[in-house]
Amino acid sequence: MTPTLGDPGFLLPERKARIDEVVAHRTRTLTVVMETLCDPQNVNAVLRTCEAFGIQGLHAIEGPMKRYDPNKKISQNADKWLDVRRWGSTRECLGFLKADGFRIYATHLGQDSVPLGDLSFAPKVALVFGNEHRGVSDEAAALADANFTIPMLGFVQSFNVSVAAAITLARAVERRVAERGRHGDLGEAEARALRERFYLLAVKQRTRIAKAERAEARRERHAKARGE
Amino acid sequence: MTPTLGDPGFLLPERKARIDEVVAHRTRTLTVVMETLCDPQNVNAVLRTCEAFGIQGLHAIEGPMKRYDPNKKISQNADKWLDVRRWGSTRECLGFLKADGFRIYATHLGQDSVPLGDLSFAPKVALVFGNEHRGVSDEAAALADANFTIPMLGFVQSFNVSVAAAITLARAVERRVAERGRHGDLGEAEARALRERFYLLAVKQRTRIAKAERAEARRERHAKARGE
Repeated sequence: MTPTLGDPGFLLPERKARIDEVVAHRTRTLTVVMETLCDPQNVNAVLRTCEAFGIQGLHAIEGPMKRYDPNKKISQNADKWLDVRRWGSTRECLGFLKADGFRIYATHLGQDSVPLGDLSFAPKVALVFGNEHRGVSDEAAALADANFTIPMLGFVQSFNVSVAAAITLARAVERRVAERGRHGDLGEAEARALRERFYLLAVKQRTRIAKAERAEARRERHAKARGE
Repeated sequence: MTPTLGDPGFLLPERKARIDEVVAHRTRTLTVVMETLCDPQNVNAVLRTCEAFGIQGLHAIEGPMKRYDPNKKISQNADKWLDVRRWGSTRECLGFLKADGFRIYATHLGQDSVPLGDLSFAPKVALVFGNEHRGVSDEAAALADANFTIPMLGFVQSFNVSVAAAITLARAVERRVAERGRHGDLGEAEARALRERFYLLAVKQRTRIAKAERAEARRERHAKARGE
């Protein structure tokens, strides 16, 4: 049977294998919470970093007027492959995660803060990164199971938020492998569902590219026909 | 003797102690080369990250028309505390570093690339990060003692350059402590010179702030005198 547009058979075997490999490294037991980030460049850099580290689900807590606005160039379309859930308040978001069994670790310098290296990633963990100017809210710091800092050796007081997320996730992935045996850990049914979803996304992408190529070829033929 | 403006005696003991602590964590045996980066936000994020990791000296290879342009807000004035040397070509910069005993590690995906985790930081190391669009040049990849990649688990093909620098430096500092016994390693004379330089910078900063405060107080007095 000839594969039709929209059919996963339309995908090259290499593309399918690549998707299967990515899904094998995906997890929902480590997640990231962006609390009222305001710079789209930062949001997109965090999305891109999360995607690269196999984080499937993220949470965006939005201020009264803020909606994150994915920039395709900076995120490298990373958001297309992720589940970003939007929340109206910190309380709702962290409450949901706690009820779902997540330990909450917030990047916050307080009296009881511990260095990143001391955190355990054996449990399900949600990492909270705060606003570029104000840091995490008092509410998030109070609701967190642990507040942590990334050790800094110089004069600057903080890392850029996407830098902080990257350093933290690199460490988290390493610790998860040491403490849980592996990082990617979707159940079989969930992995299958995600593969199917990614196949479809990839087919749509191919279809768009194929359409664009046909349109371009048409333009060229017409241009030739007009003797241009 | 009453301390005068420009005199390190003008500095609070806490500020001096902070400077001494930062200098104790500084190194010149690990350095970063930015090869024709084009986005000032990236350059400034890299500067800020380097400063936070105790890297004292950096190298900026500039394209024919490019000069890096520190943005005070993003770099958090990090460049003030750093030595950034500018170079007109990759060959000159890497040639200088090699002659100075540095091993060159470039972030580049090639046939002989190794994962970041396999790199040794026992020798003096220069880490080369390439242009946002083109990556490191063929010349840098060829001149490098090793090309390395940061393992990525998702669909996106690369990290943002400031994210890549941060993940690499976090790992480098950790490995240096394991392999060399410590990260900060300036010689006594060099540390003293750097402390003196930082004291002066801090005094200038205080002087600027004091001047601004006096000017503000003057404006307020004048405003009151005019009955505003």
